[in-house]
Amino acid sequence: GSSFAIKSPKMLSYGTRAGLPDTHPVASQLLKIMEEKKTNLCVSADVTSSIELLEIAVMLGPVICVLKTHVDILEDFTSDVVSKLKELAIKHNFLIFEDRKFADIGNTVKHQYEGGLYQISSWAHIINAHALPGQGVLQGLCAVGKALGHGCLLIAQMSSQGSLATGDYTQAVVKMAEDNSDFVFGFISGSKIIEKPGFVHMTPGVQMQTGGDGLGQQYSSPEDVIYCKGSDIIIVGRGILASPDRLKAAEEYRKAGWEAYLKRLAGELMKLS
Amino acid sequence: GSSFAIKSPKMLSYGTRAGLPDTHPVASQLLKIMEEKKTNLCVSADVTSSIELLEIAVMLGPVICVLKTHVDILEDFTSDVVSKLKELAIKHNFLIFEDRKFADIGNTVKHQYEGGLYQISSWAHIINAHALPGQGVLQGLCAVGKALGHGCLLIAQMSSQGSLATGDYTQAVVKMAEDNSDFVFGFISGSKIIEKPGFVHMTPGVQMQTGGDGLGQQYSSPEDVIYCKGSDIIIVGRGILASPDRLKAAEEYRKAGWEAYLKRLAGELMKLS
Repeated sequence: GSSFAIKSPKMLSYGTRAGLPDTHPVASQLLKIMEEKKTNLCVSADVTSSIELLEIAVMLGPVICVLKTHVDILEDFTSDVVSKLKELAIKHNFLIFEDRKFADIGNTVKHQYEGGLYQISSWAHIINAHALPGQGVLQGLCAVGKALGHGCLLIAQMSSQGSLATGDYTQAVVKMAEDNSDFVFGFISGSKIIEKPGFVHMTPGVQMQTGGDGLGQQYSSPEDVIYCKGSDIIIVGRGILASPDRLKAAEEYRKAGWEAYLKRLAGELMKLS
Repeated sequence: GSSFAIKSPKMLSYGTRAGLPDTHPVASQLLKIMEEKKTNLCVSADVTSSIELLEIAVMLGPVICVLKTHVDILEDFTSDVVSKLKELAIKHNFLIFEDRKFADIGNTVKHQYEGGLYQISSWAHIINAHALPGQGVLQGLCAVGKALGHGCLLIAQMSSQGSLATGDYTQAVVKMAEDNSDFVFGFISGSKIIEKPGFVHMTPGVQMQTGGDGLGQQYSSPEDVIYCKGSDIIIVGRGILASPDRLKAAEEYRKAGWEAYLKRLAGELMKLS
């Protein structure tokens, strides 16, 4: 028998998971990018200037798998900005994730996703949602995004202090994801919360220096998130943006995240021998 | 002794509650409007055209206490629209409630509330937030909104099917509201969830015809919400917007909501005798 047969799902490489039959097309595309570019780094581009957002995409595009945006904090958003982002996503082979945290009833989120000034569904490969409103939030989003080939992450846990997304809540989110796996391909969570290898886990609040921000944010290290907690992708914002050399900082995070991933793969393979 | 002394808080009129020392300034202003205009009707102006939004504000302004907006579904938003809304709010004496459902960490919601194209904090008297991220979401919003004299509703329950905002979650929201009553003045909830008369309860998903919308929304009647469930304000969207005569429909909802309120006041006074 091959060693493959006795591997538990958590030991599969990103590339192997990309090719599994149950993996959502967006997860598959993402996992392939991660394997090819050797990066599990998502940069959170929390800036208020469109030029700065595009500069980040140009500079960091080569070392990231996902660019996470909050277009609703840009003071000078135009549709031209997202057109350029889309071009950069193709050029540098990353996905765009609008961190909108949809959290309303189905009929409302449908409009918020498709319409308004931002027309998120026309450019974001990935969005996320809170499960709090119940399944209708996904029905509304899916009605817009599925035909466009997009996917959604459910927020199962949050990195902020005193978050109510814990315990039974998190378990309910996992169930909702499994019930809607035609559109939901993963989670925002602090750790791996489901063994199924088709789901992708992304973890925010990552910094080399642990601590907080004075507004409730709490930080974990790349090693902790990927190696100890079994998540797949580190989301780094201020750890990179506040650095005087953003490319150097991003490369350090990419390296730390990737080494933690290799260590997890190796460590788990070693347990088999 | 006066009968006033033995009234439990739930029997106080809107006008009396407006004058209590613990009532938040925004709640006080709102309760005064309700008493003066004899209306506990909030219209949910879920439209995608700015002209239509302004038409609703012009037509229904006289019969509502609150205009609830989703500016992020307007396909032609400009800052001129919210300037006009502000003028109409003064002219017709109602408050503007942007139903943004902030649901991110403090540092992010601060930017989402103040910045971006919508600059919500510059025109919305009322916003709302999910308690899910923990207290940081309120710290971030309060840092922007408190000095502007605005207030926030916490979403304690939702009208959509399978909502996870129930039980312990709702109780945690109530506690967070009490701990942050310098900025939080009430709730989005299906019923009254706290006896303190300074807090205002607003209930969405109200229609004369009960039922659902096929995307998880579930409807209750004005009588049920105000008289049976003890909430303060009915939020009506499609029940009015889908009517061929919106003013007539709104007036029917206003009357139904107000009569349910009078019945509650009278019913509870009768219990004393």
